[in-house]
Amino acid sequence: MRIGILGGGQLGWMTILEGRKLGFEFLVLDKSTSSPACKISDLCFDYEKVDEFVKLCDVITYEFEHIPDEVLEKTSYLTLPSVEVLKLKKSKVEEKVFLRKRGYPVPNFTVATNEDLERAADMFELPVVVKSESLGYDGKGQYLIKEKGKLKDVKSNHPQGRFLVEEFVDFDFELSIIGVRNAKGEALIYPPTINHHEEGILIYNKSTDLAFPEAKEITKSLIEELNIVGLLCVEFFYTKDGKLLINEIAPRAHNTGHYTLDGSYTSQFENLIRAITGLPLGSTKLKSPSGMINIIGKSYEEMDIRKVLSVDGAKLYWYGKEKRYRRKMGHVNVVGSSQEDVERKLEYLYDVLFESLKC
Amino acid sequence: MRIGILGGGQLGWMTILEGRKLGFEFLVLDKSTSSPACKISDLCFDYEKVDEFVKLCDVITYEFEHIPDEVLEKTSYLTLPSVEVLKLKKSKVEEKVFLRKRGYPVPNFTVATNEDLERAADMFELPVVVKSESLGYDGKGQYLIKEKGKLKDVKSNHPQGRFLVEEFVDFDFELSIIGVRNAKGEALIYPPTINHHEEGILIYNKSTDLAFPEAKEITKSLIEELNIVGLLCVEFFYTKDGKLLINEIAPRAHNTGHYTLDGSYTSQFENLIRAITGLPLGSTKLKSPSGMINIIGKSYEEMDIRKVLSVDGAKLYWYGKEKRYRRKMGHVNVVGSSQEDVERKLEYLYDVLFESLKC
Repeated sequence: MRIGILGGGQLGWMTILEGRKLGFEFLVLDKSTSSPACKISDLCFDYEKVDEFVKLCDVITYEFEHIPDEVLEKTSYLTLPSVEVLKLKKSKVEEKVFLRKRGYPVPNFTVATNEDLERAADMFELPVVVKSESLGYDGKGQYLIKEKGKLKDVKSNHPQGRFLVEEFVDFDFELSIIGVRNAKGEALIYPPTINHHEEGILIYNKSTDLAFPEAKEITKSLIEELNIVGLLCVEFFYTKDGKLLINEIAPRAHNTGHYTLDGSYTSQFENLIRAITGLPLGSTKLKSPSGMINIIGKSYEEMDIRKVLSVDGAKLYWYGKEKRYRRKMGHVNVVGSSQEDVERKLEYLYDVLFESLKC
Repeated sequence: MRIGILGGGQLGWMTILEGRKLGFEFLVLDKSTSSPACKISDLCFDYEKVDEFVKLCDVITYEFEHIPDEVLEKTSYLTLPSVEVLKLKKSKVEEKVFLRKRGYPVPNFTVATNEDLERAADMFELPVVVKSESLGYDGKGQYLIKEKGKLKDVKSNHPQGRFLVEEFVDFDFELSIIGVRNAKGEALIYPPTINHHEEGILIYNKSTDLAFPEAKEITKSLIEELNIVGLLCVEFFYTKDGKLLINEIAPRAHNTGHYTLDGSYTSQFENLIRAITGLPLGSTKLKSPSGMINIIGKSYEEMDIRKVLSVDGAKLYWYGKEKRYRRKMGHVNVVGSSQEDVERKLEYLYDVLFESLKC
């Protein structure tokens, strides 16, 4: 069976590393054929060869959101999760409107254009969070506005398109939950993780002994409501007064699920493949307490690999991408004998990997 | 850093799947460039292009023993573990003579030529085990002789070369231990596994709560005596009167260590890469009780993948090789909550995978 992946980044790379074990072939479509996933795919195509790509695929999935509409038009009939979900996700506005309309808990927000951004911001106490509708991952196109004067910069950065204007949530911590569902409607939910972001980028996350049954229920309900065949990650704020609010959703493998490669009975990547190929889903149980820390904006030489690998139970994933400021270059998974053991290891790795990070 | 692998089979394939995560590039040398490892390597060469291959490699390792001497001559200066160890291993006679000379426990044996095979067999009670010196893995070139008349067949199958003639060991069970060592002399030992063979082929193996300190000591001593930089697997018989005898050694990744991909903090493949590239070794601890079962002589279609993947904690590795009688086509790793849990799962998988095996 031939599986096509839209996007050739690290999520595609890990999907192929896992999916090859199941005996599948992989074709990648990306704007550049030198991307990480292309190096281990059977065939790699650029966007111009989308027709050829589609012809060879039995099923197609995606590993990032920013795929041109003209590509999606040609691939949609084979694509799982459905392109409708992807389109919902592509717009930060439509995503939040959908969630609120369906009664899911989200931060208070309104929608604005370039012209009425000030008026929209006036609806909330400062600070407010302004997000460009169509941009936005790893904190890109996203602004924490503490004084109204700064809205000018946002407007000049984004002369066109809409904005999501959200009240600032003073959360206690962030958590996320990943669910997987196949075409038969069978669904499994991974245990929650506690996530630590800095300046809009996930730095590390870890498993937790807390159960968060409400967050699991929300994830299960959403995965069914969106008729997902594949993965859905739901990111939550846990507010200081103990409420859950959805920050965002992603219908694909997610950075907060990388730990599953080493910590879980079945990784998120393998379960994605199982779901879209009609195979039985794999157990989402933990083998042991786990965590993950990203490697950001460093070259291979700048990462102290000896220190990283000296951590008992550390596993390095180096994506082989060209170094860029704030770019995710790799990650380290960690397993341990207890939650505290994992936390100690993550703290050590944070010192090793972020001592010189300025982002 | 570019790592060369001599041999393109499943051991090379798994070495690349693991080693890519560490950021290395992989070059494969094999008689055929359509082998499993070639499909995910950066470059693949046939034996005729050995000079080109060597020029591009920073370090070379091997994944099977039967590499032509003229290839080894050209690659030896970059090869780890050393080619001397490999040559020792290539001869079933030299391997056993070395072990006995150095005082390691081995079954009683003698060496014979085609002419004096009967006389050699007379030195032991029947049955005896006769092994061709230069052939022999998965039971090939190996004969259990219950009546002397059968020696004729052995002689006509192997008109040339020497034989190892061993007393038959009526063992209680087989176990193996894998050790890893780097150039600094740091060594780590994996926990022992109990192995189940049928007709000379490993069928399944599993972790055990028993410690076997003597077997660990022997493995550690051998890995140092052979100055291994890389992996060494030692297979033992555990006799009915409680003695350990070495059956064979292998200076490479080993089928009885496949479970480490999912059951251990660090897989045997990752530790091989760490050892030969001078990186710190990874913990050999178990994450959870584990086991492995081979898939033998079946095509992908003949394997009931739905049943295999319905086992909680089962992970399939399909090598993508052409089906042949008695050929190892893939394996399934299993993790569980207890040793008994793993055993139950292996029993179920045995029924699924071997119900129609005739070997």
